[in-house]
Amino acid sequence: MPVIKNVLIWDSSRRDAQYGDIVIGESGLISAVTPPGAGRGDVVYNGGGRCLALPGLVNAHTHVSMTLLRGIGEELPLMEWLHKKIFPAEEKLTACNIRSGADLAMLEMISGGVTCFCDMYYFMDEVAASLVESGMRGALCRGLTGDDDQKISENLALAEKYDGFEGRVAVQLGPHAPYTVPRDAVRKIADIAREKNLGVHFHWLETKSELDTMRDRYKTEPAEYLESTGLLEVRELILAHSVWFPEEQISCAARDNVTVVHNPKSNLKLGSGFAPVRGFLSAGVRVALGTDGAASNNRLDIWDEMRTAALMHKGYHMDPTATGAKDVLRMATVGGARGAGFKNTGLLQPDFTADIIIVDTDNPRYVGLDETNVPEFAVYAGSSRDVRASMVAGRMLYKDGEFLTLDREKILRRAGEDRRSITKNSNFSG
Amino acid sequence: MPVIKNVLIWDSSRRDAQYGDIVIGESGLISAVTPPGAGRGDVVYNGGGRCLALPGLVNAHTHVSMTLLRGIGEELPLMEWLHKKIFPAEEKLTACNIRSGADLAMLEMISGGVTCFCDMYYFMDEVAASLVESGMRGALCRGLTGDDDQKISENLALAEKYDGFEGRVAVQLGPHAPYTVPRDAVRKIADIAREKNLGVHFHWLETKSELDTMRDRYKTEPAEYLESTGLLEVRELILAHSVWFPEEQISCAARDNVTVVHNPKSNLKLGSGFAPVRGFLSAGVRVALGTDGAASNNRLDIWDEMRTAALMHKGYHMDPTATGAKDVLRMATVGGARGAGFKNTGLLQPDFTADIIIVDTDNPRYVGLDETNVPEFAVYAGSSRDVRASMVAGRMLYKDGEFLTLDREKILRRAGEDRRSITKNSNFSG
Repeated sequence: MPVIKNVLIWDSSRRDAQYGDIVIGESGLISAVTPPGAGRGDVVYNGGGRCLALPGLVNAHTHVSMTLLRGIGEELPLMEWLHKKIFPAEEKLTACNIRSGADLAMLEMISGGVTCFCDMYYFMDEVAASLVESGMRGALCRGLTGDDDQKISENLALAEKYDGFEGRVAVQLGPHAPYTVPRDAVRKIADIAREKNLGVHFHWLETKSELDTMRDRYKTEPAEYLESTGLLEVRELILAHSVWFPEEQISCAARDNVTVVHNPKSNLKLGSGFAPVRGFLSAGVRVALGTDGAASNNRLDIWDEMRTAALMHKGYHMDPTATGAKDVLRMATVGGARGAGFKNTGLLQPDFTADIIIVDTDNPRYVGLDETNVPEFAVYAGSSRDVRASMVAGRMLYKDGEFLTLDREKILRRAGEDRRSITKNSNFSG
Repeated sequence: MPVIKNVLIWDSSRRDAQYGDIVIGESGLISAVTPPGAGRGDVVYNGGGRCLALPGLVNAHTHVSMTLLRGIGEELPLMEWLHKKIFPAEEKLTACNIRSGADLAMLEMISGGVTCFCDMYYFMDEVAASLVESGMRGALCRGLTGDDDQKISENLALAEKYDGFEGRVAVQLGPHAPYTVPRDAVRKIADIAREKNLGVHFHWLETKSELDTMRDRYKTEPAEYLESTGLLEVRELILAHSVWFPEEQISCAARDNVTVVHNPKSNLKLGSGFAPVRGFLSAGVRVALGTDGAASNNRLDIWDEMRTAALMHKGYHMDPTATGAKDVLRMATVGGARGAGFKNTGLLQPDFTADIIIVDTDNPRYVGLDETNVPEFAVYAGSSRDVRASMVAGRMLYKDGEFLTLDREKILRRAGEDRRSITKNSNFSG
């Protein structure tokens, strides 16, 4: 059986980390966590006592193919950016572009220790194919706007083909947002999700204008909207952003099947506001972390999101005790895994999937690390640059700089060509 | 003559970047920037058309030896953190510890593309020795508290020994802050600085309580304080933090010899507040970036500070056009260099010091980079992990993972031992 030797093991079920070995069963599940030296099997990574083993990080709200649009129309007012830059560029994207952008995102995520992601976009068969080939774990949905049965059919066909694939792909329905989908259509989608036993991934109150629209157009409050549409009853519900979720209403989301996805850097970059993360934590609402698309971030780096999440709320509340390192590392691991609907992913415990990353601590930033302070060192001093290996369900995807499932050079070359074709003869760049 | 070949060259005097070569003269100054292929000499780095050349980054407010205190007492209220954790630990630090922590910081900074730093601490001869050995550029001062002629003498002895050393060390006087040094003593220190032609490095209004103290104790306003103490007249003045500098008073700092140092991550982590950076920029006040000490950050990574500076003010003002990438890259390069008192450092132009970093862009995050968008890609998608070489005054300090002036393994080993001795038998950890 494969074994990871001599690593400092932490997950959010532990107070302190422990040195040990991780033994992986044939099924891709962790079969045992042992003291150092006691794990028997084929050594797939030897941490030499100087590496961390953490659960794979989860990017719980993103649009991976937008890597091709990175840097287009920087620092414009939101509506000008969307209508003059992003939407026209998206109209030109082909299925091939979507695949190419997704592949590019897999390189960045896998090498940065992200092993699972939740994605909403279109041409999702292409994203699914990229996900399957890469070996990653993920929850996918086709973005649904308007009241459009054709798009719902596409989303259901995606579910038919991929939901449950190899135990590492989930399909959710993807109503885009309350302001882009009529309320009755959201209710219909939630009904279908319940009937087909699928999750739902929904943009939720990213900007203040969305809260105003909800109140003006539907004469309703957010909690009542969630309850009346049936969204709270689906298999799993992702509420992406949730920046303007009124604090006194958030307790309706404190349910085992509901996950709020906090996107710290995207919210800052687009000037959306500060999500009530301290409120979510104290109300018992599960929180995960996401990067959003690379056009509004511009990285797919969950280390960066962890650090920003841990810092921005301390600054906003002027309280150095707000949103601790342990909280954000939980968000980035088991929080995101549960949001994606994977119930035995996100902890390094027997019978959990062997989604594991190896982090090299032999560098100046980690002097002082011990069993008691892994989350603090990882969140405040750690970096995606320290990731030495990424494994999903026991399969090594990346090790010591080499991609084991993807052709890095080919992907970079094709993405470069696609990017040039998108921006050629247009006013997109800059 | 040494030459850096085939790189995409950007500095904040240019609108667009240009591909070219950089030729370095015997004096450590840049002698020419030529089209690609036209630079003659010994090739010290060939960027192969896939690397950026940027001015070395400047960490314009830090306490480098605090790397040994990284992670001690995380997420405590500020006064508890200082009085129960940091001050007791600092009391135990020996001269050897200070050297060891400084050396550790040099590794982190040089490998992350930081070529210059401004430091305030004690046992500063140790920091100076570390700086000199490392080959970096820097401005040093002895932190002065109270009205203490002994400490001022130490600071002046440091200046005597090191100010102007090899053209890459400056010494400033280091009155700690308005609340720790009596106003008359600050005036005396400013007088000495003028008389001896030295700069001053001063903590300035980091927290709201400091502004309140100034108004209560001295019955004065910040602008009047600066004017009446003579601080605005010294060779160069660093105002570190400046979080609570009232916006209507900041124009007094719009002078060529004054630099405000913004510390985005430290300000967030300690819950100090949001500095009026948009106001500084529009008032024409020069801004630089700093990490503060590693105990309140916990990295010495100016890429991280650039990204945080560019994002946090957009979020705070809910305005995606606030504090642009070009602004923060200027802060991190020529802004910091001028703050440190180096007038011909921070641009890649003839007769400027050859303080240059090489950044590898052959990775997924840089697909889409061209001559028009270097600051946006560097700030939003870039990372210290991409730094391949760091040069100061024409001398290569770090190249392709190797430190050319420092013994990495020895420094890491000694820093680990020192850290253990500091935290042993104490309640400092965690």
